[in-house]
Amino acid sequence: MPFDFTPLVPAGSPAPAAKWTGTAKYHFIGGNNDPDQVPVAGLKAAAAAVLEREGASLSQYGLNSGPQGYLPLREFLAGKLKHDAGMTCAADDILIVSGSLQALDLVHGALLARGDTVICERDCYEGTLNRYARLGVNVVGVPLDKGGLRIDALEAALKDLKAKDVRPKFIYTIPTVQNPTGTIMDEDRRAGLLALADQYGVPVFEDDCYADLIWNGKRPPALHAMSTTQNVIHIGSFSKSVAPALRVGFIVAPWPILSRMLALKTDAGSGALEQMVLAEYCKAHFETHVPQLRAALKKKLDTLVEALSEQFGTAAEFDYPPGGIFLWVKLPDKVDAMALYNAALAEGVAINPGPNWSVDKDWSRSRLRLCFASPSHQEIRDGVAVLAAVCRREFGVPVRSANIER
Amino acid sequence: MPFDFTPLVPAGSPAPAAKWTGTAKYHFIGGNNDPDQVPVAGLKAAAAAVLEREGASLSQYGLNSGPQGYLPLREFLAGKLKHDAGMTCAADDILIVSGSLQALDLVHGALLARGDTVICERDCYEGTLNRYARLGVNVVGVPLDKGGLRIDALEAALKDLKAKDVRPKFIYTIPTVQNPTGTIMDEDRRAGLLALADQYGVPVFEDDCYADLIWNGKRPPALHAMSTTQNVIHIGSFSKSVAPALRVGFIVAPWPILSRMLALKTDAGSGALEQMVLAEYCKAHFETHVPQLRAALKKKLDTLVEALSEQFGTAAEFDYPPGGIFLWVKLPDKVDAMALYNAALAEGVAINPGPNWSVDKDWSRSRLRLCFASPSHQEIRDGVAVLAAVCRREFGVPVRSANIER
Repeated sequence: MPFDFTPLVPAGSPAPAAKWTGTAKYHFIGGNNDPDQVPVAGLKAAAAAVLEREGASLSQYGLNSGPQGYLPLREFLAGKLKHDAGMTCAADDILIVSGSLQALDLVHGALLARGDTVICERDCYEGTLNRYARLGVNVVGVPLDKGGLRIDALEAALKDLKAKDVRPKFIYTIPTVQNPTGTIMDEDRRAGLLALADQYGVPVFEDDCYADLIWNGKRPPALHAMSTTQNVIHIGSFSKSVAPALRVGFIVAPWPILSRMLALKTDAGSGALEQMVLAEYCKAHFETHVPQLRAALKKKLDTLVEALSEQFGTAAEFDYPPGGIFLWVKLPDKVDAMALYNAALAEGVAINPGPNWSVDKDWSRSRLRLCFASPSHQEIRDGVAVLAAVCRREFGVPVRSANIER
Repeated sequence: MPFDFTPLVPAGSPAPAAKWTGTAKYHFIGGNNDPDQVPVAGLKAAAAAVLEREGASLSQYGLNSGPQGYLPLREFLAGKLKHDAGMTCAADDILIVSGSLQALDLVHGALLARGDTVICERDCYEGTLNRYARLGVNVVGVPLDKGGLRIDALEAALKDLKAKDVRPKFIYTIPTVQNPTGTIMDEDRRAGLLALADQYGVPVFEDDCYADLIWNGKRPPALHAMSTTQNVIHIGSFSKSVAPALRVGFIVAPWPILSRMLALKTDAGSGALEQMVLAEYCKAHFETHVPQLRAALKKKLDTLVEALSEQFGTAAEFDYPPGGIFLWVKLPDKVDAMALYNAALAEGVAINPGPNWSVDKDWSRSRLRLCFASPSHQEIRDGVAVLAAVCRREFGVPVRSANIER
């Protein structure tokens, strides 16, 4: 009889993973990107050049750059973050990590203990919310409007916590193409957030992983750039700008807290070949690649918006986002997004139900996140049609939708 | 004034990391490999071929292979593990991870809670011992002899724990080129270990990361292969056989426990480019590359052994290891290895002091681990001469050593 491991698993462990059975036919989930926009030729040339020049250094953990990551990549980032986001940071202020998911884990590891409180946007990245749940952290969600996190609501939340004698560990925000709402906080609002953070003595955790994907290429300065008190931990990623399967992200933070994260990064460094290839590629091509990628993504967004209008009419409400890879959609109140998720998946359409992407399960009950970067234009059109048919069958909305021949 | 993060760091956090200041001149530490043996041309060709053919799939987390890792790499591993280690496993029994350090974390995450007890070899990999300390796990170290873990001592330890009503969570062992002792358990001893594991209902955690580096190329079957009760979790790595800076390792385990680890692997997969390049390279070249690497490493070991004999004479005792990248050395009892470590580092020689690599701090007090793969032959000779001079100055041993002109 096979050995039974089950009694040895600690109480409170997450449920075992299910076997992977492939992706849905219409795959509107996950931060995947457009396969046609992976700069294959450029990556190939970069790999050849950097391996030829420095391949032997793969014999060393950390190459010749130490545990913070490949120095030319950190130097590229320091320049890029200055140029794009107004940030002043040196290569030594940057820690290269295995995607911004490891960045989340390291920031959480350095600052959070069970029972702590954090503030985040009410609608928020699922992976962050899941991490808070697993860590046993109390989450205060602050509402957003079309301009992102509402400063008045943030002030109220901070005041309320202070009255309860709770000092939150940080304010987590995605200020630049917020996930899932797609909003961008303008400079005034950023200043307001930073003023409150200073006033209440709460640091800011800025997740900027979508900031490269703004249609007009213009972004406000990072919170990290605007802070006068070095109270911002800034993270970013190459997953959205180059390719998600390259697991390369970064943390920019003052050394007293970055050194705490480095002490928790006990994996002997992130994948060096990916760092080397990215550095080599990005130095030469990042600035021309990203605008092409943006243009392709915006076209897919337009296809999605068109398909939603055609299939859902006024039943699907949304704000056209200024960038990103997802659309946050409100359906009529009678739609239960969790139930729609299951029914749609059975028909081959994968969507993110709102309640998984929000602190407020009621508010998000009829909302969805639809990712548009990865499916083809045809798959977007067909998938939305199937989704509308399922939604009509299950919830009676949309009442009518376009007839599409298949 | 800059924001002070310190009061926000949870109690019990590890100390902040120190700034990296480069490697020691004579660097006898870390699992680094021989820079001349990185198969640069092969990796370059593999990168070009696989990017050309499948580069667009980098747009998807997990490529087209799902969360367990790039399927062709898992298929290569299934074949290799059958051929080399006698293991029967399918691609679906394998989880690709970010180096065997992530494997340690996932196995620990799936099985260990604070206050648990584990059994390991008395002299043991520092990274494992550090993890146990951080996790608050009780460690029972079982002595080794020239044949590896002593089965009589293991039985005594299991009996003793049972008398105290303690069921250890697993027996952690590096049976094939043990770290740091370099020993290999023969098939009889492996059978003895498995019989005890079955008798006491304790699973086995087999860390086989050095198994490719045996001088004569012959290894006993893996514990995973010999178990009749599927009670073995097996981990391995490409760090030692190809290049450490490629952070690619793997876990082979029955699905009921592998699925628990997969649920804890919330990093959206390990670096895909490294997996793709490794799979492409290894399918064609692994079998010819590894014997070349072994031959080069054995030459370095011979240089180290020669240098130790010349500089330390009979003051340095060791068993010539059958493989690996390190030598476990006993110096006279008057030598305090921790003090030697500091004194040697000040002279540019980095060594691993025994107490960091052993459960038993007294037993290991005068022992060292010397890694020989990364320094050049000349650096090995010079570094050992400096080490001997420091040791003589600090502890009066070795009494005499060769005169070497510099």
